[in-house]
Amino acid sequence: MSPLRSGLAAFLCLAGGASALFPDCVNGPLKGELVCDTSASPRDRAASLISLFTVPEKLNNTGNTSPGVPRLGVPPYEWWNEALHGVAAGHGVNFSDAGDFSHATSFPQPILMGAAFDDELIHAVATVVSTEARAFNNANRSGLDYWTPNINPYKDPRWGRGQETPGEDPYHLSQYVRALIAGLQGDKDDKYKRVVATCKHFVGYDLETWNGNYRYQFDAQISPQDLAEYYMPPFQSCARDSNVGAFMCSYNAVNGVPTCADPYLLQTILREHWGWTDEEQWVTSDCDSIQNIYLPHEWSPTREQAVADALNAGTDLNCGTYYPKYLPGAYAQGLINDTTLDRALIRQYSSLIRLGYFDPPEAQPYRQLNFNNVSTPEAEALAYRAAAEGIVLLKNDGALPLALNASTSLALIGDWANATTQLQGNYAGQAPYLHSPLHAAQARNLTVHYAAGPGGQGDPTTNSWDAAWAAADAADVIVYVGGLDISVEAEGLDRNSIAWSPPQLDMISALAAQGKPTVVLAMGAGQLDSAPLVANPNVSAILWGGVPGQAGGDALIDVLLGDKAPAGRLPVTQYPASYIAEIAMTEMALRPANGSGEDGASASPGRTYMWYTGRPTFPFGAGLHYTTFNASFPSNSTTTTTTSTLSISALLAACPPSTPHKDLCPLPASLLPTNALITNTGKTHASDYVALLFVSGTHGPAPRPQRRLVAYTRLRDIAAGETRTAALEVSLGSLARVDERGRRVLFPGAYRLGLDVDGPPAIEFALEGEAAVLDEWPEPDESVRVGKGVVGVGEGYFVGGYGSGGGEGQEVL
Amino acid sequence: MSPLRSGLAAFLCLAGGASALFPDCVNGPLKGELVCDTSASPRDRAASLISLFTVPEKLNNTGNTSPGVPRLGVPPYEWWNEALHGVAAGHGVNFSDAGDFSHATSFPQPILMGAAFDDELIHAVATVVSTEARAFNNANRSGLDYWTPNINPYKDPRWGRGQETPGEDPYHLSQYVRALIAGLQGDKDDKYKRVVATCKHFVGYDLETWNGNYRYQFDAQISPQDLAEYYMPPFQSCARDSNVGAFMCSYNAVNGVPTCADPYLLQTILREHWGWTDEEQWVTSDCDSIQNIYLPHEWSPTREQAVADALNAGTDLNCGTYYPKYLPGAYAQGLINDTTLDRALIRQYSSLIRLGYFDPPEAQPYRQLNFNNVSTPEAEALAYRAAAEGIVLLKNDGALPLALNASTSLALIGDWANATTQLQGNYAGQAPYLHSPLHAAQARNLTVHYAAGPGGQGDPTTNSWDAAWAAADAADVIVYVGGLDISVEAEGLDRNSIAWSPPQLDMISALAAQGKPTVVLAMGAGQLDSAPLVANPNVSAILWGGVPGQAGGDALIDVLLGDKAPAGRLPVTQYPASYIAEIAMTEMALRPANGSGEDGASASPGRTYMWYTGRPTFPFGAGLHYTTFNASFPSNSTTTTTTSTLSISALLAACPPSTPHKDLCPLPASLLPTNALITNTGKTHASDYVALLFVSGTHGPAPRPQRRLVAYTRLRDIAAGETRTAALEVSLGSLARVDERGRRVLFPGAYRLGLDVDGPPAIEFALEGEAAVLDEWPEPDESVRVGKGVVGVGEGYFVGGYGSGGGEGQEVL
Repeated sequence: MSPLRSGLAAFLCLAGGASALFPDCVNGPLKGELVCDTSASPRDRAASLISLFTVPEKLNNTGNTSPGVPRLGVPPYEWWNEALHGVAAGHGVNFSDAGDFSHATSFPQPILMGAAFDDELIHAVATVVSTEARAFNNANRSGLDYWTPNINPYKDPRWGRGQETPGEDPYHLSQYVRALIAGLQGDKDDKYKRVVATCKHFVGYDLETWNGNYRYQFDAQISPQDLAEYYMPPFQSCARDSNVGAFMCSYNAVNGVPTCADPYLLQTILREHWGWTDEEQWVTSDCDSIQNIYLPHEWSPTREQAVADALNAGTDLNCGTYYPKYLPGAYAQGLINDTTLDRALIRQYSSLIRLGYFDPPEAQPYRQLNFNNVSTPEAEALAYRAAAEGIVLLKNDGALPLALNASTSLALIGDWANATTQLQGNYAGQAPYLHSPLHAAQARNLTVHYAAGPGGQGDPTTNSWDAAWAAADAADVIVYVGGLDISVEAEGLDRNSIAWSPPQLDMISALAAQGKPTVVLAMGAGQLDSAPLVANPNVSAILWGGVPGQAGGDALIDVLLGDKAPAGRLPVTQYPASYIAEIAMTEMALRPANGSGEDGASASPGRTYMWYTGRPTFPFGAGLHYTTFNASFPSNSTTTTTTSTLSISALLAACPPSTPHKDLCPLPASLLPTNALITNTGKTHASDYVALLFVSGTHGPAPRPQRRLVAYTRLRDIAAGETRTAALEVSLGSLARVDERGRRVLFPGAYRLGLDVDGPPAIEFALEGEAAVLDEWPEPDESVRVGKGVVGVGEGYFVGGYGSGGGEGQEVL
Repeated sequence: MSPLRSGLAAFLCLAGGASALFPDCVNGPLKGELVCDTSASPRDRAASLISLFTVPEKLNNTGNTSPGVPRLGVPPYEWWNEALHGVAAGHGVNFSDAGDFSHATSFPQPILMGAAFDDELIHAVATVVSTEARAFNNANRSGLDYWTPNINPYKDPRWGRGQETPGEDPYHLSQYVRALIAGLQGDKDDKYKRVVATCKHFVGYDLETWNGNYRYQFDAQISPQDLAEYYMPPFQSCARDSNVGAFMCSYNAVNGVPTCADPYLLQTILREHWGWTDEEQWVTSDCDSIQNIYLPHEWSPTREQAVADALNAGTDLNCGTYYPKYLPGAYAQGLINDTTLDRALIRQYSSLIRLGYFDPPEAQPYRQLNFNNVSTPEAEALAYRAAAEGIVLLKNDGALPLALNASTSLALIGDWANATTQLQGNYAGQAPYLHSPLHAAQARNLTVHYAAGPGGQGDPTTNSWDAAWAAADAADVIVYVGGLDISVEAEGLDRNSIAWSPPQLDMISALAAQGKPTVVLAMGAGQLDSAPLVANPNVSAILWGGVPGQAGGDALIDVLLGDKAPAGRLPVTQYPASYIAEIAMTEMALRPANGSGEDGASASPGRTYMWYTGRPTFPFGAGLHYTTFNASFPSNSTTTTTTSTLSISALLAACPPSTPHKDLCPLPASLLPTNALITNTGKTHASDYVALLFVSGTHGPAPRPQRRLVAYTRLRDIAAGETRTAALEVSLGSLARVDERGRRVLFPGAYRLGLDVDGPPAIEFALEGEAAVLDEWPEPDESVRVGKGVVGVGEGYFVGGYGSGGGEGQEVL
């Protein structure tokens, strides 16, 4: 043990002894109480504990900075901890200045990990994060619950927090988050949770500040169809399918009701429809979103009514001070009752009990973790792998991988060339190191000529040119590393442009005009319209590197050199720069609109690869390789199968009885095999390959999306000449469409399953028989929507039915 | 002499000796050259110097960081120096870390100085700035030219750089800038200029980043009428009436042409129409706006053509590196010639000659200035006065001035309560001190309870409440000091909201509900819609304090206590928060539009107090006092004169022959006296009084503005009971209207001169006879407007005429 580590051990002893980190069930006031009885149920233990609290003590423990109850030996607890892509600094997390606990592994931002399309990777990353979080907690440097993941689909390219999400596709997000929560929380049946994850922001939150609209007051108008089809699936995956420990309601309102005060969202959908009813499952507000119910939403006429509306709706915890400040008044006025107050506290303390908070540490494996378990070599390798797997190759005229030798040199030019904190993006912790591309290139003994870039998005370049010319003149190959960073895309800050900034574009084209191989590494979370770079024959290659974390430079340089082959796919659409002028950020509808319809909708080119009617610069799923691949479905020798017909009733009958929800029933391989054979047909490079499977066809109500992702998997390290099988399991829920009422319905009609951005190869088939509702969708109870901002979700949405012989889906057969 | 000062003297000797600060005409290579002959004309001296340069040496000296010509002993010179409200740090200005030259006087931002409506104050401030600038220059710590003032009218409340301007009214700006330039440059006939001022940004620049529009690429569509009536007058004041030494062309295009490449703006209007033809008058580009001609404007097809287009149009200097980088290519391609290149350099060096650059220092008074002349007690007093004069009282239920005594205490709450750098805004230097309200209150021995505010514009307040409650609970009087700062309004950053942020509004209303006197100090440059505070009976008073500079806290506390009476007036309209949703920031038209007109214009509620058709929360010119005033015109005993009729021809005949331009002819007091008598009718407080005179009436073409400012003056320290005369001279140009062709025309019709936001009192009169053109307006030469973005300023603008019996103006008689 190093001196540092032994120092830690001494600290841990102190923390486990005198500090107030955990309740003392052995010698403290709670000794002998039911809450300390590990044989009792978490609910009974928590209910017993809360019964010991006085009403003021209850009211006092409703904010994120919970003071506990000193009288009872219940220690203070900070509920606000962050771990978006590694244990993150701030709030409940306290890094040391040096030595032990001065760092934690800093993975790429989720948007780049989303581009890997690798659920196994996500599970591994989340497992490291929860391990390191436990080590921090054991040292009294963090809490046990974390307000991650952010799974609002990244539907508008301007959104400043798109970087926090895995992308724009709801199926992708649903799978991603299931892997992530399993890594953060552990198995559902484990006695102790690793940590508690928090799915946020529930729901319809994807706007920071746009044209006078603020997240704190925005009222998202969302149809039941868009809600159930697009905005809700990732949250359903969290609540119904992953048993996540916590939810966070959002700043915005949905259809007139602030989400944190909406029992339709928090009770009817979340708890009742999705069965999220374990005692230890709690809802926190976003930070100060309870205040926002009063102002600016002006939903509740008084502050006391606002806190009561939130607590009664099912918001159990307030990030902020409104609950502790105004719940006493609400209680005195009879706006809340003891049952509701106790419910909130029992949920919170049940959650802590499931985390072992009141249990003997020696019986808990996670309580044994320490700084030896942080930033391990395996964790560092995983951070590198996560960065490398996400990088997307968008253009290559053959310049990549670079053929450098001892006598050739590289110019690294641009604001990201020597990036350090830029590599992390927001909600970052202290990384053990931040390897810039420059650092990585030098570490590989390349001869590098470095120059900073022209600065931020559109600011004057002024004197930045001379160094760039000098570097370019001296080098044989030019690599420009620039794009976006959190000065232009961040929490609170949506982008005003999705074009490359003119100074950057000018510098790139001027450098490229020198006639040397010129590679652009497009960095940052949001896509910049690279059409001018694609069209410029002097630009040899384009890679998108996202926000790649502590090992980002290593991964980028290795990809440039061919030591690692790129295989990521764009997790979002890369729109033309003109797109944002065609659609308001406040527009929540996914479907295109011509603006002349009777519904009064504004003209819209549609949103996401599913509905966008224009021509993207690069589509969702785009990504090139250093080698060539052949893909096929083994069931047929041609690129397209002969059409087969399947019966909806037979598909349902084939569903294993153990499947808890009909939409999760698989499309049986015995009836329609969907696995694909992938062959690396190149001669040189081993490479990963991401198999994406999309469905399209005339089934379900018009308008119909162009295609929808229904399965994906990543095959790793396919050697030149090697063939592998991509397991692509399709659920009936993925084949289903969502109707105007929000119901997920398996429709008869024509289907086409296309591989890799719509094939070839493809499988065509038809479903016949009656449309089947796989998942009902609860209607809002209008009686509770009484605030000023109510926008009726009226009868207009509830049209049609799917009885025998009826239903829109059958019209298309 | 203090040790510090003697240290300075030693440094100055060094600077005057070995350094390259000034050319050495005594012993250097230029000795004996004409440029060193002080008896020759500046033009001949400069032309002689440039004739010594080789072509590469000329091309090399076209950027802001001019290397000079070492061979000739011409030292390097940095043209980019800033002094918006005091000598500002950065670029050519170099503050020391401590001791001498570690600070300079930091005045309020222009928007607050504009609120003083005190041209004498502005002249005094500018004189201090130029004095301190010279002292810095003598110590080789700054240049001799400064890129100030910013006089684009502040027409949209969202504009992030509105803080840099004196306000929204073109007459006000014209008067303000005349006083400012006289203070910066000295008298026109002085042998040596104090410093050179630079009027910017020419023209039509008042947008940073809005909804996908960037200043670097925005093409402002402006009619000749709006251009001549609204956007141009401050620049005319600079060029024609103040002989300013330099202009800066802007980032944006106007009617399709990037301003820095537009000979219509830079030659036809600026130099020919306004007679701005002295050799030493030069135009600089904004920083990198030459690059922007190529990209993103895409006006010129190559970079070489872009620099040639700019130089040929009359942009003499490039802030940036495009000129030195690409002019050699343009020269080689024959896109520029020697005459044009020499013209640019002769202008620059003539300017330096007028600053004494090549002359013996002993004969120049400004060369004797040193740090003893910086931050003098007089300068410090002036910074205080500038802050105090601008503060505007908007609401007062009698709580102000505060009646505090030894047993009462004050809560100072909010993000500005302990403001330091916030007091300065952008383009700031290092101040000798930054006195926050908290500092000032403590210095006055008040008992103060301080708490920070809820943070920026709309961010979560979270844990900021407890300290605010504690402070408010402990105090007898609550003062909230908040609003805006450069986190939400800044260069590059237009506002997304003109409402008070919900957390601030929530905190103010919660504090005010305690029933104690509660005063709101609204800080920041832009107006926040204070309607909720006006309507809230618990809010006792509202003061607007702008961005008040180094003595801001002193001035604010003195106004609160009544040691200084507020008398500032809003230099902009305070719009309702909904205004920004009604008009695009890109809309350049001032006049309202109903959106159904044949011209296809979008609906608009109009801009500025002149044209806005809605009800402002506070109008331009609003401002209350601690005392009461009576105002009257001495020529009549009632509040409104009897109508008199004047002949236009008689008015013109009465114009003194020495008046250089007809629009400057005064309305003769012998025909219509407009001076007002102002009486302080209160019993307690002495107070300043700003007399504003507006014209309205049915004269000139419809639509007609509601009123227009035609004269103002500030009377200082009017004692209780005292009467003073406000000298209000009205020019014929102020009475004139601008027609659709851009001509300034004195129309027959009905006129009303109203005092103090439209009277009473008022003077009504009529003008009769033929409409008279006081100022022609040059038409653009369409042959030069050949770029891609050309928007024709076609015949539609040139309608009607003003011959005998004709003209729209006469229709209203």
